[in-house]
Amino acid sequence: MLSDKYLEIRNLTEEICRPLKTEDYVVQPVVDVSPPKWHLGHTSWFFETFLLKPHLKDYTEFDPNYNFVFNSYYETIGARLIRTDRGNLSRPSVEDIYNYRKHVDRYMQVLLDDEAKTANLKEIIELGFNHEQQHQELLLTDIKYILGHNPLFPAYIDSEKPFFRVEPGTFIEIPEGIYPIGFNGDGFCFDNELGSHNVFLQDYKIRSSLVSNAEYLEFINAGAYKNFEYWHLEGWEWVKQNQIAAPLYWYNIDGQWCHYTLQGLKPLTLDEAVCHISYYEAHAYAAWAGKRLPTEFEWETASSKLNWGERWEWTESAYLPYPGFKKEKGAIGEYNGKFMINQMVLRGASEVTSPGHSRPSYRNFFHPYLRWQYTGIRLAQ
Amino acid sequence: MLSDKYLEIRNLTEEICRPLKTEDYVVQPVVDVSPPKWHLGHTSWFFETFLLKPHLKDYTEFDPNYNFVFNSYYETIGARLIRTDRGNLSRPSVEDIYNYRKHVDRYMQVLLDDEAKTANLKEIIELGFNHEQQHQELLLTDIKYILGHNPLFPAYIDSEKPFFRVEPGTFIEIPEGIYPIGFNGDGFCFDNELGSHNVFLQDYKIRSSLVSNAEYLEFINAGAYKNFEYWHLEGWEWVKQNQIAAPLYWYNIDGQWCHYTLQGLKPLTLDEAVCHISYYEAHAYAAWAGKRLPTEFEWETASSKLNWGERWEWTESAYLPYPGFKKEKGAIGEYNGKFMINQMVLRGASEVTSPGHSRPSYRNFFHPYLRWQYTGIRLAQ
Amino acid sequence: MLSDKYLEIRNLTEEICRPLKTEDYVVQPVVDVSPPKWHLGHTSWFFETFLLKPHLKDYTEFDPNYNFVFNSYYETIGARLIRTDRGNLSRPSVEDIYNYRKHVDRYMQVLLDDEAKTANLKEIIELGFNHEQQHQELLLTDIKYILGHNPLFPAYIDSEKPFFRVEPGTFIEIPEGIYPIGFNGDGFCFDNELGSHNVFLQDYKIRSSLVSNAEYLEFINAGAYKNFEYWHLEGWEWVKQNQIAAPLYWYNIDGQWCHYTLQGLKPLTLDEAVCHISYYEAHAYAAWAGKRLPTEFEWETASSKLNWGERWEWTESAYLPYPGFKKEKGAIGEYNGKFMINQMVLRGASEVTSPGHSRPSYRNFFHPYLRWQYTGIRLAQ
Amino acid sequence: MLSDKYLEIRNLTEEICRPLKTEDYVVQPVVDVSPPKWHLGHTSWFFETFLLKPHLKDYTEFDPNYNFVFNSYYETIGARLIRTDRGNLSRPSVEDIYNYRKHVDRYMQVLLDDEAKTANLKEIIELGFNHEQQHQELLLTDIKYILGHNPLFPAYIDSEKPFFRVEPGTFIEIPEGIYPIGFNGDGFCFDNELGSHNVFLQDYKIRSSLVSNAEYLEFINAGAYKNFEYWHLEGWEWVKQNQIAAPLYWYNIDGQWCHYTLQGLKPLTLDEAVCHISYYEAHAYAAWAGKRLPTEFEWETASSKLNWGERWEWTESAYLPYPGFKKEKGAIGEYNGKFMINQMVLRGASEVTSPGHSRPSYRNFFHPYLRWQYTGIRLAQ
Repeated sequence: MLSDKYLEIRNLTEEICRPLKTEDYVVQPVVDVSPPKWHLGHTSWFFETFLLKPHLKDYTEFDPNYNFVFNSYYETIGARLIRTDRGNLSRPSVEDIYNYRKHVDRYMQVLLDDEAKTANLKEIIELGFNHEQQHQELLLTDIKYILGHNPLFPAYIDSEKPFFRVEPGTFIEIPEGIYPIGFNGDGFCFDNELGSHNVFLQDYKIRSSLVSNAEYLEFINAGAYKNFEYWHLEGWEWVKQNQIAAPLYWYNIDGQWCHYTLQGLKPLTLDEAVCHISYYEAHAYAAWAGKRLPTEFEWETASSKLNWGERWEWTESAYLPYPGFKKEKGAIGEYNGKFMINQMVLRGASEVTSPGHSRPSYRNFFHPYLRWQYTGIRLAQ
Repeated sequence: MLSDKYLEIRNLTEEICRPLKTEDYVVQPVVDVSPPKWHLGHTSWFFETFLLKPHLKDYTEFDPNYNFVFNSYYETIGARLIRTDRGNLSRPSVEDIYNYRKHVDRYMQVLLDDEAKTANLKEIIELGFNHEQQHQELLLTDIKYILGHNPLFPAYIDSEKPFFRVEPGTFIEIPEGIYPIGFNGDGFCFDNELGSHNVFLQDYKIRSSLVSNAEYLEFINAGAYKNFEYWHLEGWEWVKQNQIAAPLYWYNIDGQWCHYTLQGLKPLTLDEAVCHISYYEAHAYAAWAGKRLPTEFEWETASSKLNWGERWEWTESAYLPYPGFKKEKGAIGEYNGKFMINQMVLRGASEVTSPGHSRPSYRNFFHPYLRWQYTGIRLAQ
Repeated sequence: MLSDKYLEIRNLTEEICRPLKTEDYVVQPVVDVSPPKWHLGHTSWFFETFLLKPHLKDYTEFDPNYNFVFNSYYETIGARLIRTDRGNLSRPSVEDIYNYRKHVDRYMQVLLDDEAKTANLKEIIELGFNHEQQHQELLLTDIKYILGHNPLFPAYIDSEKPFFRVEPGTFIEIPEGIYPIGFNGDGFCFDNELGSHNVFLQDYKIRSSLVSNAEYLEFINAGAYKNFEYWHLEGWEWVKQNQIAAPLYWYNIDGQWCHYTLQGLKPLTLDEAVCHISYYEAHAYAAWAGKRLPTEFEWETASSKLNWGERWEWTESAYLPYPGFKKEKGAIGEYNGKFMINQMVLRGASEVTSPGHSRPSYRNFFHPYLRWQYTGIRLAQ
Repeated sequence: MLSDKYLEIRNLTEEICRPLKTEDYVVQPVVDVSPPKWHLGHTSWFFETFLLKPHLKDYTEFDPNYNFVFNSYYETIGARLIRTDRGNLSRPSVEDIYNYRKHVDRYMQVLLDDEAKTANLKEIIELGFNHEQQHQELLLTDIKYILGHNPLFPAYIDSEKPFFRVEPGTFIEIPEGIYPIGFNGDGFCFDNELGSHNVFLQDYKIRSSLVSNAEYLEFINAGAYKNFEYWHLEGWEWVKQNQIAAPLYWYNIDGQWCHYTLQGLKPLTLDEAVCHISYYEAHAYAAWAGKRLPTEFEWETASSKLNWGERWEWTESAYLPYPGFKKEKGAIGEYNGKFMINQMVLRGASEVTSPGHSRPSYRNFFHPYLRWQYTGIRLAQ
């Protein structure tokens, strides 16, 4: 039932926010991290804008100013708050935004109960679901950033969640050949996965497991952050300008490596997969190890043999359109296509990805310098 | 009684914050505007750092991390949060900070009840009072900025407060002569007012009243924002780069001038003194009117004949040390002296200055481009 | 004979500079444009550093300071002038640098006359030749920028050189299949062309001719520079921030389109291929035309059927390593590999590419916002 | 004779440029340093714009584009090249600009030969002379910057010029009283010296000699560049951000202090007056020494008893209008008045000031962070 799935997803979003104090909902410490209250509002705005306003006859808008506040990047939908201003807004209040969510939910129930109507709108409804799931992951990564950059290092949750232990892993061999790429099933997928097509791959090997913290520490201890030869020119300048010397959230306290986690500041666990590294670091690590990163095509082809789902994995592929990629008409066409420049593809999923959200053909993408997502390294050769 | 005065001042600070929602305490939309919760913490940190820690034997620090968070600019006191990060902190929470205030207040009562001790500390206690009063004014100017730059334009208070009506005013003549300048009384004053000394003034005239909105509108309507000849070179570049065309908080909505006030967005009142203008604008207005701004010495000399207290008034004087200015030893010496470069002096007081806080010898100072304080124009010639 | 080829190439570089005034050799109006005298010195430094110093026993360095001045980006070779400072150096003088060239040339003759030795150094010698040819093209594009951004619009040469006329062109069909990619011959190629390998291509069509000025004018006149829907998000921000409304060097003078050429300011010729556009513009044009840009693999596969060599052509491919790409050891390894991020591949050649320098497998690459090279558009679908 | 004085001044300008290579005329390594060829053109443009065009009937403009290129900051005169672009222009060539000078000189002779006419124009003619003298000093300071920031450290001249030896010096006492300030003679002065008026000064002492390199070295060796307490907040941030640790042009080479001079890199002479320091450094030095800088009024009052003319001396006075300051009408009114904000006054003259150019009432002014002028320190208390 779409209606059940809707409620389940909407509830999970609010569940994620439950441990927050009101103040935690408000701040935006860097441009890429949005205030949690903005995520709560924006995901509701998405349903309001693309479903309720155009398709529910008696829908009453909650507040006409909210379109300006909660539009993220849809030029088609009109003027919007500049992104860097999200953390400057104390209003609408958290309470107002929860009321906005309730308002949207009530009308969405009406819409979803009309089976004839939802049949035609299935695609956009499912896009709304997946959109909200993407923001669930962003909520968790943004909350981690907000609390992990506070000098008090408050914990988000207390319970000990088991981390992902990395087994040593072996290199799997994949023979040269023509392989199918892209989504080819019945369920939902994003437009950037469409255009199922063949690629020709040379022989390659890909490691079954991710790189561990212990392995990454060797890279640090070998002085690789001070040796230009493993780095792209841009990566090297990024290292020097930002004085990067370890993954994000790592702190060396009196000679002991610690890292901030959602449970607070903890000693580093050596057999966990390394996390919160940029593409530049992933590439440099692979170069230092005498290996390389896999392409997204190699990853997808080998995916059934890999241990994946722990971390988003940087690939050696730029985010570009598949052959036959078609941008949708209207605002929905702005969802993916307009980002296909200067970003790198990540494959897999992470421990904060919503359940059931990813799949082998899923294409995540970020700028090569970003580290606040749960990003890791898999080697190929 | 110092103890009564302490409570009165501390209560007023919290009174000012009463109309705020929790979210309003958190944001920092520009570097000069601090989050209200930071003001609440910083004023308490001031008493803790300069009185409780050094002078109350059994004082227990509330939280050792707070020194890093709430130190504003005192290098002597150690490392501190960079100023632009104040709005990135969701913790300490508003509740935590009110508890911090209570903690400090409880111990301050102990200290202030010890009459022998307070006799020796009178100067620094009174500095703490005046420091908190300065932050009371900043709280109001910062709250106005936070709410006045929100696209929803929420009101801070509902009650209609009478504004300051500007009477036409006349030019008062002051004859050439030697006049005394600086603080020369018994009560409290800041170190920058000390060094009472003589100055020689030529004949001058100074207007009894401030420039009104009606007068300033003539300047706008005459196209003065588009004519370089009234402006300093720096002022003209500031106008062009920031596309300045009216005072801060003024909006021309469908041909009607409105301004944001603490009561919300209101139509402009013509006989109110013009407010929220930069020194550049004050200077350009005077040049356009064929007049000039008074120096701080002219202002102080004529002050008993002026109608003042409505608005801080830009003068033609740079903020420089008086003859015989002495910087205090230690952190307190950082209070005023290190700002004596590239700032202009303002005299008077404003409608949001705390009662009894200003006096004729009071020297306020800001950078010439700033507009978020309640600043106005008085003409001389 | 290597020695003859050396002289021929070195002479052409100086030939290109002949029309310059001394002052033209010195300036660097933007970071990407180097002063011509820097190109003259740097190309000599390349031979000195990679051939004379390590391989000619009795070589005497011309000036030990020149390593600092003329090293471009080779970290292996030591400290170097920051790139933005190239235009701040009045010394070494133009005369000094010509003497430096003569000095290097004299010793290079000695080296090249030693056949036994050159046999082992063939690869690096040819790299030096091709390196200098790349700078010959940069000399012409940089000179064009220097003179074309001068308010006096001086001409570089007077002679009328025929421009490249674009014939209407047809779409050539290429069937689905496995095609070989990469350099597979005997002569010289860069390391980024190596790793000859197969790719699988779907059916596609590619136009035999480039997009003309007349066609591009339709795009302008249709208001495409003011309509976000054809642009990448980054491209759209680039358009707005830089107020882009036409290709580089185009000026609309009293309603008439002109463009700056090496012969000075001229009326725009409609049947010439459009030139000096960014990747963002190439992509937006293709989107507006209902087509797309070819990938570099599609381009290379179809190259024998295309009319190419007029303009470098933006492709839809990011600059990434081929399967099996190996970075050379030492400084030479810095030639290409470290740039393989956030750049797009261009294929073909331009009217200012040195004779014999390009080939179908040649991979040129620039950041997507750059326009000072001779860049054009070919459509695919 | 005005005509003789004109020639003498114009010749000195060209004499100053004689040791330059053509390339030295072109570069602009920082925004405040203009290319020598720009100074040559701009000083000619001044005579052309304010004398020849309005007052010589048959004057033919040399090149109509030059107004755009050589206008410095006169908004009244129309559009102009942005200041940071001066070093991006290879044309007009040095030869062209010398021809421009000859052209202007020829017509100026005609004008100056007409005694009736020059009688009325005396003021603006003398302004032109003094303007060119100011640029003579700027030529020398800019040439020093251009050559002194070149990694080859070329000398401007070879001859050994005796430096200014600082005698130990004593503190001169000036009694409290009313003193006259401002220009009050017959000859030429700038408008910012006018408005001769009285000031009241308290008792003060002022040192007869400037601070020497030996004295300044003590300040460095005492760690004063690493101790915030001597600095303005802005000065301290300037020190940290720019990693300032010594005066401009000082280099510590293997433990030996050297400085770049117009004769090339030389060992530091201890009994020379310290030079090329910012106002921030002058102020911090005085604070460290337990003294202060004099105000411009104290300086002028004591000037007949001081040993001055070696170095421009930072004062504790901001650059503000004198009582009764009147801005001239039209472009000439832009000469001084519009800079009266955020700059500090310097008094005296330097070894590169043109002969006869300065006087006791002369008010020089620069931003507090600037160091490329010949600036020194005199103490008061």
